[in-house]
Amino acid sequence: MVSKADVSEAPRARRRSGLENFDPIRQVLWSRPGFLVRRLNQIHYAIFAEECKSHNMTPVQFGVLTALSLKPGLDQTEIGTELGLDRTTTADVLKRLEEKQLITRRPHPADRRSRQSLITDEGFKVMKELHAGMTQAQQRLLAPLSPRNQEIFLKLLSELVDANNDYSRAPAHSSL
Amino acid sequence: MVSKADVSEAPRARRRSGLENFDPIRQVLWSRPGFLVRRLNQIHYAIFAEECKSHNMTPVQFGVLTALSLKPGLDQTEIGTELGLDRTTTADVLKRLEEKQLITRRPHPADRRSRQSLITDEGFKVMKELHAGMTQAQQRLLAPLSPRNQEIFLKLLSELVDANNDYSRAPAHSSL
Repeated sequence: MVSKADVSEAPRARRRSGLENFDPIRQVLWSRPGFLVRRLNQIHYAIFAEECKSHNMTPVQFGVLTALSLKPGLDQTEIGTELGLDRTTTADVLKRLEEKQLITRRPHPADRRSRQSLITDEGFKVMKELHAGMTQAQQRLLAPLSPRNQEIFLKLLSELVDANNDYSRAPAHSSL
Repeated sequence: MVSKADVSEAPRARRRSGLENFDPIRQVLWSRPGFLVRRLNQIHYAIFAEECKSHNMTPVQFGVLTALSLKPGLDQTEIGTELGLDRTTTADVLKRLEEKQLITRRPHPADRRSRQSLITDEGFKVMKELHAGMTQAQQRLLAPLSPRNQEIFLKLLSELVDANNDYSRAPAHSSL
């Protein structure tokens, strides 16, 4: 049985052992790479939103515009493959970009069931305006590390995504 | 002007220069840490779903259960802080866990406006059943790296999250 004296001793014993800042939740959760990757992803979204707030643009929207600037006319399936997005998410992002008039869509000449996406003049203008902010967001995300460690982190991160690439199209909507 | 001969020469020139596998989209997107972090997060969700499919549990739900198992009776704000979740997401996850009868909620004795969450017996049973799968998911996520590089990656990842911690409560709902 634990007496009152024992209980009141506990904080003092913790202080003596240097454990007064010990946080069991942090200890457990922060040892899970999946937990840390989710937090870093949120951090990137938050920094990106700050840097690109003038156009209310998300990283995924900017990624789709980037892909279309390099390969104009991609259809929805191709965009999903390039960006690692499932069908529902890709459709949703394309719809938002079209509503903002940053892309237009037209029937695919070789396959009437699919549609090609193209960046509009307004889309190119917005991309140009946001490019510095997007780059700044990437730099701020890694800024806490030394240049050498930034390089190592990016290399290992890229290895992990490459090796697990087949798994990276999980639906974004079922994440809660 | 580009003649037909020039155009048909292009693929051959690419092959000669070892560029036949050059993918401009990959080249550009994979140099952005934010893009890679999003993909790795999706990879983790997909692997976790595979490992924990028996109970249809997400990483965030398991994280909340973990926090409550270590500090029973946390309220919604405290859970959000511990897990790095915004208010809407926390409320949504707690609602789902309550519907699955894995947690119960009761009024906070010190503050009638907030409610404490507690894991049910069923919740502890499910956590126990899923623990091996959750651990397996963490290991599979990093498995492509050597043990030494896994350690380095986890250390740098943890440094990045720690340094940017204030940014990690971005709403999960506005991510498209």
